[in-house]
Amino acid sequence: MGDGHYIAGDWGTTRLRLSLCQGDAVVDSAAGDGIAALAEPAEAHFLRLTENWRRRFANLPVFFCGMVGSRLGWREAPYAPCPGSADAIARHAIRFQSHGFTVAIAPGLTCTNPLGAPDVMRGEETQIQGAVALNPHLAKGRQLLALPGTHSKWVLLDNGVVKQFLTVPAGEVFALLADHSTLTRGADRGRMPLENFRAGVARQAETALLPALFEVRTRQLIEGLSPDQALGFLSGLMIGADVAAALQSFGRDLPVAAIGEPALVRLYLTALADYGVHGESIDGSACVLAGLRAIFGVPN
Amino acid sequence: MGDGHYIAGDWGTTRLRLSLCQGDAVVDSAAGDGIAALAEPAEAHFLRLTENWRRRFANLPVFFCGMVGSRLGWREAPYAPCPGSADAIARHAIRFQSHGFTVAIAPGLTCTNPLGAPDVMRGEETQIQGAVALNPHLAKGRQLLALPGTHSKWVLLDNGVVKQFLTVPAGEVFALLADHSTLTRGADRGRMPLENFRAGVARQAETALLPALFEVRTRQLIEGLSPDQALGFLSGLMIGADVAAALQSFGRDLPVAAIGEPALVRLYLTALADYGVHGESIDGSACVLAGLRAIFGVPN
Repeated sequence: MGDGHYIAGDWGTTRLRLSLCQGDAVVDSAAGDGIAALAEPAEAHFLRLTENWRRRFANLPVFFCGMVGSRLGWREAPYAPCPGSADAIARHAIRFQSHGFTVAIAPGLTCTNPLGAPDVMRGEETQIQGAVALNPHLAKGRQLLALPGTHSKWVLLDNGVVKQFLTVPAGEVFALLADHSTLTRGADRGRMPLENFRAGVARQAETALLPALFEVRTRQLIEGLSPDQALGFLSGLMIGADVAAALQSFGRDLPVAAIGEPALVRLYLTALADYGVHGESIDGSACVLAGLRAIFGVPN
Repeated sequence: MGDGHYIAGDWGTTRLRLSLCQGDAVVDSAAGDGIAALAEPAEAHFLRLTENWRRRFANLPVFFCGMVGSRLGWREAPYAPCPGSADAIARHAIRFQSHGFTVAIAPGLTCTNPLGAPDVMRGEETQIQGAVALNPHLAKGRQLLALPGTHSKWVLLDNGVVKQFLTVPAGEVFALLADHSTLTRGADRGRMPLENFRAGVARQAETALLPALFEVRTRQLIEGLSPDQALGFLSGLMIGADVAAALQSFGRDLPVAAIGEPALVRLYLTALADYGVHGESIDGSACVLAGLRAIFGVPN
């Protein structure tokens, strides 16, 4: 089994990150195409990227999470129902042989969310287990975890187990409106004033979201907001609506920890604070690898 | 003054429609580029398209409405404040000479909408005056007019005068989500089942819009909705949210008349009916020309 070496893979929609690991250490790494961008079958892409590693070590175990397990991925790993502990995720993983490898793919999770609708995650279940492994205080009692992004996940953790979650596609809708709508043009995402962001958070709390979106335009035309200010207002509307949906679903009494890209996490913590909720920031960079180790164990 | 001939122009963001008219009759027509698509100055474009008409008739009066009067148009016709009667719109029109023409451009309207935000319309003020002129019952008492579309307008009419209005960018957000999002792919807008549309209308009434958008995806993954069914659900969410914002703003007790593309108007009347509100459909095809006549008078 190659001196305890193994391959850990984070294979999402837009990119593939492969790590050759030994224990907790990353020995080598490689990057490839996401599931939605593949120009060849997933297996062929994987074999090509790992050729050197496979020459050095026979029978490397391979552990994957993410869209690689979706219907459009390498092989489908059907969603496991909540509660989602590391053990339960491992039990629902699929395992198969490929050219002498044993490949394991973590399943996504599904639940009925607090709004009564079916909900899914794929990839985040592993990040969450990594966050818990790296931050032991998250494994104690009830926590609300925020994973903001294209499809934000709000996760109710109970002693490290995912009990229920809610997805809010705030990042995707924001990107579509910022890049392709007539509401605002020519703004720079790096220059959104915090004041306008907070005005957006406050505005969505007092009115319906859809008509408020048009204010992104009229506040430029009539009130003289600059495009950067208007984009900040739009960001506040969307992130505010995301936070509001989560707090309405899970209440305001849980400790909140946000995992993700630091600038985005800061905006979420600001919006949460404007709702009177304190949240902490968790470094997400090592969570996927730690999650794969927590779910699949580290080979000896 | 050319035997009572005049040019009526509907010059919007995406297209220009010019009509050579005499009294109520359209004698000839021409189509050109919208303000956002112009490859030459607006005046040059206009002069080129009307060359033959100008050869036949000297000193044709020209009446315009739409984005031609925006900052990016031919010349700015600043927004007039509500209340917006035909007379008030005419008083705020701008008039100037161009190569022997007298050009008049109707102003847009502005108001503080029922949600307390600045709001604007440009072009619809003329459509509305035309609808009132062609449908005399709309000129009596209080009415709620719906002009669904990219940026839906909901207009409180009092004896034919625009008192206040609300813009909801439902059509724009729907188009972005339908054409560019990961929520649903490969659907055919002509094949959205009414049942799923109505489920979407009902769903947005019971939960926040932003998290409900993700259900467009999960109801396909978990509940087996087809892409066409999911698109119908999405359409119901957006049009339902549009109607809900209007009814919350203006109440449910006013008679409602919807003007626009017939298939879209039918969906709005369905959503209104699901809220217990009856609406009538108004033919919008002749409204702009009738509105220009109502605002500027017909030359003799």
